[in-house]
Amino acid sequence: MRLFILTIFTIMSFSGQAQDKVVLVIHGGAGTILKKNMTEEKEDAYEAKLKEALLAGYEALQAGKTSVEAVQAAINVMEDSPLFNAGKGAVYTNAETQEMDASIMRGQDKEAGAVAGVSTIKNPIDAAIAVMEKSDHVMLTGEGAEEFTEKQRVTIVDTSYFKSDVRLKQLKRVQDHEKAVLDHDGDDSGEFDGSENEFNVDYIEDKKFGTVGAVALDSSGNIAAGTSTGGMTNKRYNRVGDSPIIGAGTYANELVGVSCTGHGEYFIRNVVAYDVAALMEYSNMTLEEATEKVIAKQTEIGGKGGLIALDKDGNVSLPFNTAGMYRGYITESGEIVIEIYEAGI
Amino acid sequence: MRLFILTIFTIMSFSGQAQDKVVLVIHGGAGTILKKNMTEEKEDAYEAKLKEALLAGYEALQAGKTSVEAVQAAINVMEDSPLFNAGKGAVYTNAETQEMDASIMRGQDKEAGAVAGVSTIKNPIDAAIAVMEKSDHVMLTGEGAEEFTEKQRVTIVDTSYFKSDVRLKQLKRVQDHEKAVLDHDGDDSGEFDGSENEFNVDYIEDKKFGTVGAVALDSSGNIAAGTSTGGMTNKRYNRVGDSPIIGAGTYANELVGVSCTGHGEYFIRNVVAYDVAALMEYSNMTLEEATEKVIAKQTEIGGKGGLIALDKDGNVSLPFNTAGMYRGYITESGEIVIEIYEAGI
Repeated sequence: MRLFILTIFTIMSFSGQAQDKVVLVIHGGAGTILKKNMTEEKEDAYEAKLKEALLAGYEALQAGKTSVEAVQAAINVMEDSPLFNAGKGAVYTNAETQEMDASIMRGQDKEAGAVAGVSTIKNPIDAAIAVMEKSDHVMLTGEGAEEFTEKQRVTIVDTSYFKSDVRLKQLKRVQDHEKAVLDHDGDDSGEFDGSENEFNVDYIEDKKFGTVGAVALDSSGNIAAGTSTGGMTNKRYNRVGDSPIIGAGTYANELVGVSCTGHGEYFIRNVVAYDVAALMEYSNMTLEEATEKVIAKQTEIGGKGGLIALDKDGNVSLPFNTAGMYRGYITESGEIVIEIYEAGI
Repeated sequence: MRLFILTIFTIMSFSGQAQDKVVLVIHGGAGTILKKNMTEEKEDAYEAKLKEALLAGYEALQAGKTSVEAVQAAINVMEDSPLFNAGKGAVYTNAETQEMDASIMRGQDKEAGAVAGVSTIKNPIDAAIAVMEKSDHVMLTGEGAEEFTEKQRVTIVDTSYFKSDVRLKQLKRVQDHEKAVLDHDGDDSGEFDGSENEFNVDYIEDKKFGTVGAVALDSSGNIAAGTSTGGMTNKRYNRVGDSPIIGAGTYANELVGVSCTGHGEYFIRNVVAYDVAALMEYSNMTLEEATEKVIAKQTEIGGKGGLIALDKDGNVSLPFNTAGMYRGYITESGEIVIEIYEAGI
């Protein structure tokens, strides 16, 4: 089995390096995403949006733009869709507000930017990029982050932009769950009513999950990684997960870029995104070995979720320990792969 | 030279394991701490307070308390002193408020807690510990963190508790500096006027530095690391540095504990605290080799500061790339070493 896995990896690695390397990989959240709870319509909607995100980033790369711009383009598409827990589709906090987090890291100079707990920024990844490029800081939070962002070329919206009946209903269900102890096996998989907003009611069970992310490799060989999230439904106390934490939810250097999704607290404690890079650099692991090891470590401590990683040679790995993860990648020649269920593409 | 260093380390390592291992190490900030700007009185005051912190933590350990409790005891002493940029001595933000950050990590189960941007908590490390022990979260920020903390056994104070003429004067000088471009070689070393509050005017030049931290090894062999800071004088936009970021400013596992101090943005980008652990685990480096490597990486990207690290065998390392770092450690038998200038104890 071990040999079998290594053989497959060698083939993947070779094909990646030799001709058609992956240039962009994305995720739209991991969790209890089960085929039995899906309809064809729902699957199609996710696949179409993931494809749109991949093509937006690919177009940027084809136009000679940087890996940061490609990550931004891909994440913007997902942030603008109610399908994902980021931007437009951000979940509700306990106080019925949205508090979004995002981060970006540029591999070649290890510059980074992040915002946490922002409520008025249409595309939090844009704010993270502004922090990286226009400030001396890495991380700005709350109203301060918004005040800084308002001075940049970043779109500010009224908080009503983020309101949605579906997300509010999810909040109420989560709150009801909290009241009804041991009632967590109820009917939360959700009936699809045909509206786009109704799509990911499956997040109710995965209230700690969500998040979108992207890692890109540009024509100069530079890697960037970014992550954007609405965080956890019903969150309190200005809780911050791993998404805006450099090293935990996002990391990039000259060798590899990583974006994570899952139960953020566990991803912080294991410094997951950087751990992939450390295993590759210090233990000479391949991308595949490093990412599988890191997810195994997550499983050990009970941390559910997944990650996407792309190395400088265009090898890609997308492991997770949940039932599913919305994910996909595009190669230099434009070949697209999109998956929702099962580990390993 | 290489052999020489290894030999020395072997001796240290042996002596640590064999009889009188270090059980607690602390720092009180790194920066442009120059002998020429110090008076004997000033040195004595710092040394006395560092000793008090070491003894407070040591007493906890001797009483059979946990490494978390020892870290808390040591940090509380420094937080309660105006000498350090944490708690009582926290620097002013641009808005003339205090916004403090702290984090804790317990090595044996890799549980962690952190607060960022809190203004009403007397001892932010206590709040970080409460987050670790009493919540499902790792990181809470701003008013949410305060709201959570108020429900715990953590002392809340009026914001007037943190006000000080000396820190306000530092803010004004930093703000004047920003106005007067290229005027950064002015007289900022400060004249000591005899009051305790006047002690660290040297922080004016090091407005990004400060921070206190501790790493302890308890009688059960468990390691904990903690960090507490007022952040950066004149900071804006709810900027968050490395101190509340698990992996960057603080990290502990079964092998080693680390607490950092310095220009936080650079410490975040290099995931400094976790990098020490990763180099030891994945590259089989000794504590000394790993910490020196990590500080060398900081120097490469222009990140000034230092760190303290303590491993499971009681070996200690306290490297920095600034002129000085307030630091000290205590061994199992109660031997105390305190230093301010020069790299390497």
